[in-house]
Amino acid sequence: MDATFSPQRSNTDEESTLSRAKHVEKHKGYGYLMRDCIIGFADGITVPFALTAGLSSLGQSKLVVLGGLAELFAGSISMGLGAWLAAVTEKQHYELEEAREWREVREKPTEEEEEIFDLFAEYGVDRQAARSVVTALKANEDQWVRFMMDFELKLEKPAIKTACVEGLVMGVSYFIGGLFPLVPYFAFPHNTLHGLFTSIAVTGMVLLLFGFTKARLIGTSWKAAFAGAIQMLIVGSVAAAVAYGIVRAVDSNRNL
Amino acid sequence: MDATFSPQRSNTDEESTLSRAKHVEKHKGYGYLMRDCIIGFADGITVPFALTAGLSSLGQSKLVVLGGLAELFAGSISMGLGAWLAAVTEKQHYELEEAREWREVREKPTEEEEEIFDLFAEYGVDRQAARSVVTALKANEDQWVRFMMDFELKLEKPAIKTACVEGLVMGVSYFIGGLFPLVPYFAFPHNTLHGLFTSIAVTGMVLLLFGFTKARLIGTSWKAAFAGAIQMLIVGSVAAAVAYGIVRAVDSNRNL
Repeated sequence: MDATFSPQRSNTDEESTLSRAKHVEKHKGYGYLMRDCIIGFADGITVPFALTAGLSSLGQSKLVVLGGLAELFAGSISMGLGAWLAAVTEKQHYELEEAREWREVREKPTEEEEEIFDLFAEYGVDRQAARSVVTALKANEDQWVRFMMDFELKLEKPAIKTACVEGLVMGVSYFIGGLFPLVPYFAFPHNTLHGLFTSIAVTGMVLLLFGFTKARLIGTSWKAAFAGAIQMLIVGSVAAAVAYGIVRAVDSNRNL
Repeated sequence: MDATFSPQRSNTDEESTLSRAKHVEKHKGYGYLMRDCIIGFADGITVPFALTAGLSSLGQSKLVVLGGLAELFAGSISMGLGAWLAAVTEKQHYELEEAREWREVREKPTEEEEEIFDLFAEYGVDRQAARSVVTALKANEDQWVRFMMDFELKLEKPAIKTACVEGLVMGVSYFIGGLFPLVPYFAFPHNTLHGLFTSIAVTGMVLLLFGFTKARLIGTSWKAAFAGAIQMLIVGSVAAAVAYGIVRAVDSNRNL
């Protein structure tokens, strides 16, 4: 559900310089947390919206609320724990690779040197032209290892030390996102249809607001942000319509 | 939910060489599709498992089946469409950046040249040492642009031309993954508890099989694959237990 995160660019110079700076930085530092927050919120609002809309076809608000709550907790816990484990794995993976790179630089410097030449050869830079850069990199093992991590393995250093913060941010964002489509069914305990229509209206407005807030935060153009919000609205609507149809069809054809 | 995808390494030389080769290639070409498949399946099996377990506390298989089906369709559609839109956005983003880089190389070659010097300076390579590489890159605009895309912007060329294939793979994987925990409730229409226990057993076995198959496909060590499968089992169990508890608590305290 990262569909609408990548900043799109306008062609005005000032804006494009700003967004490029933000772009280059976007995978570093606390950008991670904002990304987790956006992904969690976007998923959290879409799936519970579609699920509750589907269950609303049964005409019982109680079932919608219980199903919605179960999804909200199941989804936010599995997303949050999943993000936490992913961050831990990524960090371990980076550290393993870094340790290996250090070993190789120390134990097989000639082979590592060849790898730099190979890297440059891919861009049409021959051995003779690359020689002075290789010599400069070899002068400082620390820089050399960093160069290999960035350009040979193309691994970014995980910036956040506390993987559990990432998990928490994503889980909580999912939970908050999922509350919006669910709350209207609490408000209309005896009229599922009112709940459904209010849920559609609330979810639609939150998605639009979300798209625009995101635009302010990451420097996307307003037009792109609006397009992103509309896209999410379409995804949510299609999912909700299909879930509604399936539940209705199965409910009327099956006597369990 | 990408927690268990990153290959972890053993220290034997043969295996590490193999896994490095796979690692370097893993974000290119059809690796994307395998990744979509793994993420979709992992999410698909966890959330529907937890949701159906939660709803099973109501003691009515019909509700579990309807809730599970609604989640299955809502989740697979929003994940599939989401992945499709993400792939489209990523491709557009890459093409926009590439076009801009071409413009800059043509219109402001001196500034782009400075950017290469800046890039090398970050790794302790001074202007004099970098000069010959800069000259070699400038000799071929095509290579130069590719170098800037890879090293300055660190953007990988989206390899798959058909974004809809990515979306389809992820959506279908989610759907298939979600069928496993759901089917047992179809099998025991009059005994939710039997359904729940069978669902737990089936989901546990599928997660273990999934972990090992993944290990064979991407070259993870057996130990890491087993650890990954166990982690997913824990995530699913915690989510299921909380969903079960919440549904039970709300159901007994609330008369809608």
